[in-house]
Amino acid sequence: MLGVLGGMGPLAGATFMQRLTLLTPGERDQDHIPTVLWSDPRVPDRTAARLSGGEDPLPALLRGIRGLEAAGCGAIAIPCNTAHGWFDGMQAATRLPILHIVEAAADDLLRLGVTAGPIGLMATKGTLAMRLYQERLEGRGYDVIVPPAEAMDRVIMPAIDAVKANRVTEAYAPLAEAAMALVSRGARAVVLGCTEIPLGISAGPTLPFPVADTIDALARASIAWAKPAG
Amino acid sequence: MLGVLGGMGPLAGATFMQRLTLLTPGERDQDHIPTVLWSDPRVPDRTAARLSGGEDPLPALLRGIRGLEAAGCGAIAIPCNTAHGWFDGMQAATRLPILHIVEAAADDLLRLGVTAGPIGLMATKGTLAMRLYQERLEGRGYDVIVPPAEAMDRVIMPAIDAVKANRVTEAYAPLAEAAMALVSRGARAVVLGCTEIPLGISAGPTLPFPVADTIDALARASIAWAKPAG
Repeated sequence: MLGVLGGMGPLAGATFMQRLTLLTPGERDQDHIPTVLWSDPRVPDRTAARLSGGEDPLPALLRGIRGLEAAGCGAIAIPCNTAHGWFDGMQAATRLPILHIVEAAADDLLRLGVTAGPIGLMATKGTLAMRLYQERLEGRGYDVIVPPAEAMDRVIMPAIDAVKANRVTEAYAPLAEAAMALVSRGARAVVLGCTEIPLGISAGPTLPFPVADTIDALARASIAWAKPAG
Repeated sequence: MLGVLGGMGPLAGATFMQRLTLLTPGERDQDHIPTVLWSDPRVPDRTAARLSGGEDPLPALLRGIRGLEAAGCGAIAIPCNTAHGWFDGMQAATRLPILHIVEAAADDLLRLGVTAGPIGLMATKGTLAMRLYQERLEGRGYDVIVPPAEAMDRVIMPAIDAVKANRVTEAYAPLAEAAMALVSRGARAVVLGCTEIPLGISAGPTLPFPVADTIDALARASIAWAKPAG
């Protein structure tokens, strides 16, 4: 049974469950992966904790992990990129494997045929500051291009907040514009490195370049965990 | 914390989580309802159990209820209409209140301004045979019109199976046609009394008559439980 530590935000966790189902080949209910989603939107804001002295989210994250352990789960997926800043603390506290969303995104770049070169990264300010992607992707031979600080404040963080406030469609245009700007600076693909971002990007026309959607990437990693023979 | 016994099917459970989030007024993650979704698609087929001697689903349903109790949930929502054929057995086995999807659908008819008269019902053969809707809606002053047996076999059950096999868009046309047929027989509104049906109906143009969507209706009942003051 797969454990999903969600609620960060709740729409991203719910959409993860939907994409997990739609990406699993199946003809009937019984072909799908038994899953427990622990959707706790009360987890303190991850970017605020890292950048402005907000409350530490680790105790709330560990509460969710305890719940998923008690439910009998065999692995944990966390559809929130910024929460992976606490990955080591979470993994040290459980014997269940936690599927790392950044590794899943890097595997997705390979699936998309993008094996090296400059990659655009859209994520929260917390994820950027913690260098969750930069170190792992540079270790795999990519160069990471991030939006300028001005665009983070004016475009990306407000668009993420719009999705969290259920105003999904209005997030499309600014997010698409920010992704295009990364491609115009040389990115060969763009990683949607915050699980709110694919929700906004899905609300409009498909972008004309390869995009690593971290909701789908983590769903694919979860399916590979659940059905290694498939 | 709300407990959701889902997985029947998994796409309906995931969509319930999404609609629960989108129907909850909120500006940020922390405004949303903490929820545990127990998505167990291995629960034996409910219609087969009732109509053709298939395995009894109650033990699997009770396993999920035990899991939600252990997680600390305070109430249970079950986004599967046919599973409500085992409502009494489930409710007798837990002290947590189970929000009844048929009562939620009936409340939704009132919200839609439909207070009496003939109502169309689309549901599984199991739900129809167990008269889950007929008795409750007739007790509230409605007359229930159901599709003819021929349409159940040729149109509705195959469309439900298509959704369960992730072929959601192909389910729209037959389901819309079956709903229109109920309206042409005098129904003033149509209850989508199987949680796969609103998934198919959402894949195409909005129907031109009142529709009680049992995913949304149960989500509204859940929000009313979680935020009685709101």
